[in-house]
This record gives sequence, structure tokens and C-alpha cells, in this order.
Amino acid sequence: MTVLVTGIGEMATQDDELGELSDAAMIVDGSAIGWIGSRRDAPAADERVDLGGRAVVPGFVDSHAHLVFAGDRTAEFAARMAGSTYAAGGIRTTVAATRAASDDQLRSNLERLAGELLSAGVTTFECKSGYGLDVDTEQRSLRLAGALTTESTFLGAHVVPEGIERDAYVELVSGAMLDACAPYARWVDAFCERGAFDVDEARTVLVAGLARGLGARVHANQLTEGGGVRLAVELGAASADHCTHLSDGDVDALSGSATVATLLPLAEFSTRSPYPDGRRLLDAGVQVALATDCNPGSAYSTSMPLAIALAVREMHLTPAEAVRAATATGARALQRADIGILAVGRRADFVVLDAPSYVHLAYRPGVPLVSQVWRAGVRAV
Amino acid sequence: MTVLVTGIGEMATQDDELGELSDAAMIVDGSAIGWIGSRRDAPAADERVDLGGRAVVPGFVDSHAHLVFAGDRTAEFAARMAGSTYAAGGIRTTVAATRAASDDQLRSNLERLAGELLSAGVTTFECKSGYGLDVDTEQRSLRLAGALTTESTFLGAHVVPEGIERDAYVELVSGAMLDACAPYARWVDAFCERGAFDVDEARTVLVAGLARGLGARVHANQLTEGGGVRLAVELGAASADHCTHLSDGDVDALSGSATVATLLPLAEFSTRSPYPDGRRLLDAGVQVALATDCNPGSAYSTSMPLAIALAVREMHLTPAEAVRAATATGARALQRADIGILAVGRRADFVVLDAPSYVHLAYRPGVPLVSQVWRAGVRAV
Repeated sequence: MTVLVTGIGEMATQDDELGELSDAAMIVDGSAIGWIGSRRDAPAADERVDLGGRAVVPGFVDSHAHLVFAGDRTAEFAARMAGSTYAAGGIRTTVAATRAASDDQLRSNLERLAGELLSAGVTTFECKSGYGLDVDTEQRSLRLAGALTTESTFLGAHVVPEGIERDAYVELVSGAMLDACAPYARWVDAFCERGAFDVDEARTVLVAGLARGLGARVHANQLTEGGGVRLAVELGAASADHCTHLSDGDVDALSGSATVATLLPLAEFSTRSPYPDGRRLLDAGVQVALATDCNPGSAYSTSMPLAIALAVREMHLTPAEAVRAATATGARALQRADIGILAVGRRADFVVLDAPSYVHLAYRPGVPLVSQVWRAGVRAV
Repeated sequence: MTVLVTGIGEMATQDDELGELSDAAMIVDGSAIGWIGSRRDAPAADERVDLGGRAVVPGFVDSHAHLVFAGDRTAEFAARMAGSTYAAGGIRTTVAATRAASDDQLRSNLERLAGELLSAGVTTFECKSGYGLDVDTEQRSLRLAGALTTESTFLGAHVVPEGIERDAYVELVSGAMLDACAPYARWVDAFCERGAFDVDEARTVLVAGLARGLGARVHANQLTEGGGVRLAVELGAASADHCTHLSDGDVDALSGSATVATLLPLAEFSTRSPYPDGRRLLDAGVQVALATDCNPGSAYSTSMPLAIALAVREMHLTPAEAVRAATATGARALQRADIGILAVGRRADFVVLDAPSYVHLAYRPGVPLVSQVWRAGVRAV
């Protein structure tokens, strides 16, 4: 079955060769893109959809989200806005609620958030464990995540839970917990930060995960100029996430590597922290991705459009760079070659905006511009 | 016809006596609120609606919006994000497009934006002219606005258009243009700012409008510490809007007056300007409202929820203060006693959130939480 999508006012293909097309058309052939070009040259197809001049962008790729949890942290948020500082320790509140929740409760919350992401134009999302922090709940979290995404990430190394010594916990995470979780995960992640895990501890966990065939990703340099970014580069991690506090050496390390710097502006928004300098990273040749970081503590948002608007407003990305970061480079952060840009042969994941240009994602902040979402060639929203 | 609305997890009545209720219920009696209280005490009604634990807030009151225009200013926005500075002169681009547009084109754009506002939970909005700047187009703008809202505002004094001397234009606005427009307006407004109108010019226009029975409102202190705020207080204006750059004297003047300070954080967001210090104003006893400022130049957003989130994040309002600013104090800025809070006898304008608390409007930025909108007792969204 082929569908000719026409009436595309502007299409941000985010492919260096194609760039942007206006008055464009696209053929969706099954689950993939079969043809892209000017409306005038469009071939025939079984069906036809006219978008009336709307802009089309690739489906957003959210490469960093924590969606398996129970409860929320409304009071902590309100206290923070009244002046208290964000600290990693608040995670333990969610751990207690998550351990106490049934599979059905966790699944229901996860499905609700996955639905929000889809409505916000996210056609691929990563999902971490990390609110279980015991063998059973971590594995349970990953099984639940695995039902909704192929990009599930073992984050046993989120914080050290109560009731266990640091060393014993690192040994558990990189031993028995990893054994139980690796079959359900594609990635291993560690929160390398003051209040969470130091560089050596994070390395122990990540190396163990790599040895089990998982890919590495790192929560790096969110609250301090710690060694997380350098560790990510050292281990060839797919992504160093947050990158809020970077030394020149960190930027150099990233720019000479294949590790993507994934920026999470919704976390800075919701913790009232300074934003990372996205412009500095791009100017240094670093690959920059954007993700939501959706989680109940520091960024309880599924809005990739707002992440894009913040990247433009606060990090000085151009609108085109921000859209690329939320699509093509997000795919790179997940080492996915099948998604992230609109090109022949790629999966037909795309978002139709109620606007003539992708610039409106930044120009019209907070306005729900996502009017259609197509995933693998099927209209999902 | 009465409707019993139950299953209200939390209701922000924004009335000093009632404050917040949990496990609440409300009777909608025709277009008004007939009863409010605890679910257990709820009287019977003709119909029943269960909200399943969702939070309810008063319908948002957007007391500052520019919705009658044609075209957009995407390129100007992109240039500004790349480093150029916002200046009032960009308004003239929209003036040219607006003058050239047909009534149908202007109405269609206005209705689209009014629909967005309603979907964002706005049950009352103000709408300014100001992109016509000739007698015919200003009157036309107000007639179009008047079909959708009672709160229409004559803003002939937006900028001096091309092709006319300043003095002659001020005379026109406060003379023949006012004569043509006053029958279609409730309010008169002036942009008192460098690049627009100085204090004496703004006073001339506003005094003329007051003499015609219009209420006054002022675009004040957006870009500079000019005299707009003091002028607003001097004239007993309902509201001084923007208030981004305030001297101590300005704050004193506001705190001793009945003039509301209406803050427009979406404008600071979209012009990358410093945010006004909402905390300072509240601490000084000033009445603070929030509005969208929706317009194609400096704030092309209809998102009152994002304005609330920004007020909390950037202006240090508490979530309760921000919701109050977007509802009760917005109503005050329009001198409306029939809307803005949930209390017996008020118009039944309310918003149902897909969240257990109004705090989520700030805690979940960018997420479309508005799940139902009731206006005058009828579900509109």
C-alpha cells in the first residue's frame, strides 16, 4: 500500500543533501518512505493525503526518558520553586512508590506517558529503569518498558538506595542485578554525579554492562563539572546526557568523539538551573541531541516541542538545529540508522504541524502544533 | 438545568475565603455556579459529571491579546533568535499585511486564535486593534473582535504608521479615529515606549478615550523604564501591561493604586528579554495578572498554561499565585466581577485539568493538561 502525502508546505528532511523542501510531496510505501520530492514530480499512489500547506518534520526521537515509576513529586517541585535546591536524593521518594506499585499500576502510568509522547510527536522513545534499585523491581521495570519500546535502558546505577552500603550496591548493580536485567535492556546507563555515583563507580557499572553486550550512555555533568563526560567518551558511550556544566576539556573530548551530547532543557526549566551552552557545543563540532528527560522529579514533561523552543531561546540553537537535535541527532544518540530523517528507505515516521514552517515550534511556544503523527507509515495521532 | 460536577480532586477557587478544596463538588445552575462544597454535602442535580479526581481551576482570563492581524513574522523571529534585538518598529510589517487583508481573512485568523485560546483554557479574552492604524482598518478590526468578545480595545496608538507625521497621527487617533472606533470598543490602550509613543502623546490618546467613556489600559515599561506605569496610575487605568523595567517609584505607584500590573512572560520568552520581577511586585502589594500578549511579533502564543509555568520558573510566583494571576487578577484587570473565581453566583467558567493539582500547570510545562473547558455552564472543549 502506498500513500501520496501532498500539500506539504515545507518539509524539514534534516538530511544534509536534501535540507528543506517547499511545496513538497512524499510517498509512504508500507512502513517506509518510498519517494520524496517536489509536488509537481510526485508519482501515483494507492491513496492520497493532502496536508493543506502544513509543515512536516521527522518524528521526534526522545533518547532520554524515565517513564517507569509510580507517584509524583508535586510537593518537592513546589518547594524547589520556593527556593530549595534540586538534589539527586529526591529520587528515593519515587523508588519507594515504585517498589510498592503493582505491574498494572506501573504499566498504566507508563502507557499514559507514552501516549503523551506520541501526541507530542515522539515516534521513538528510550525508557530507563532506575526507580526500582532492587533486582526484582529493576527487571520488572525493564520488562514493562520493553513492551512499548526497543530502546530500554538499565539504570540500576541511578542512586544508592537506602539500606545498602555503596560498595555492596555497586557490586550488586554490576553483578546480579545486571544479570537479571541485561536480557531486557539494550543500554546500560549510570548517573555519574555528586550524590549519585563517582567516576570509578560509574565506570564499574558501565564496563560490566558493555561486557554483557549493552551499549553505554551516561548521565554526565548535570549538577557539577564532574568526570561523567570524559568517562562517556572514554567508554565510547552513545551519548553523554545533560552536559550542563562543561570544562573546555569536556568540550574537546566530545568534539573528538562519536559520543553525542544530549541536552535536556526541560530539566533545567523544572529545576531552575542554568541551561547548557548548546551553541558552544555546536560551534565546537559536537553532535547535539535534545530529549525530554521526562521523570517525576526534575522534568515532568513529555513536550519535545517545548524542549525545541527552549533550545532556541535558552541555548541559542537555530530552529533548524533544534529540530535536527530532536530528530536526526536523537536517532544518532540511539545509534539508529532507520529513523530520524526523512529520506527514501527510512521508516515513515513524521509529524505534521499546524503551521507553515518548523520554525513555528520555537516561534509559537506552548501552542499544541502537532496535528498528525505518522509512525511506520501509519497515522497514529 | 443543573449539573452536579463531582470527582474534583482539587478545586482552586481563588477566593480568599474558600481557598482550595479537595474532594470537592460544584453545581452548575444554568450559566452560573449554584453551589460549591465538599462532595459529601453535594445536593442533587439534573445531570451529573464525574471528573475522576481531576483538578479544576477557574477559566483563564487573558486580559491582553492582539488577535486581529494578517500574516506572520517567522523570519523576524528567526533573526531575533540569531541575535537581532526586538524593536517596536516590526509592528509595521503586520500593519501592511492587515490593511491588505479582507474581512474574511482577518476573521478566519482571529477565529483560529480564539479557538486556540479556548483550547488552552481561556474562557474570556481581551482583543486589541492596532494593526490597522488608519480609521477604516482600526474600526474594521474592532468590529471583528467585537463579534467574539466584549473586551475589545482600541489601540490606534500602537506605533506611528508610515506616511504621516507624529503630531498629525496623535491628533487623528485621539480625534477622528477614536470617533469611528469608540462605539466598537470597551477600552482604549496606548503603547507608551521608545519607538512608539512618549508619555505626553500616550496621555493625549488615553484622556481622549476616557472622555468617550472607554476604560484605559497602557502598554507600559516593556523595553525601558519609561513613564508608562506612572501614566497608567495617574489616569486610573485598569492595567499597566508588561512592567518589565520598573523603578522603585513605579512599584510604589502601582502598590498604592487600583491599577493591576499585567505581566506577559511569553513576550519575554519570545524576545529573549529579561523577565519582570513578579515576586517584587507581589511583595510590594501590587495586584499582578498574567496574560498571553498573543501577537505575531513578540509573543505568538496562546498558551496561558505556559505563561503560568514561566511565571513560576522565571518570576518566582508560587503556582497558586500564578493561577490567581491568570484568573482572578486577570478578571480584575478587565474590571469584571462576574468571572475569575469559582464562587456561587459567578459565571460557570472553569477548566478541568488532566492532573490531580493545579500545581501541575507549572510542574508539567508544555504538556497539554487542559482536558475540559466549561464556559457559562456549557462544556466548550
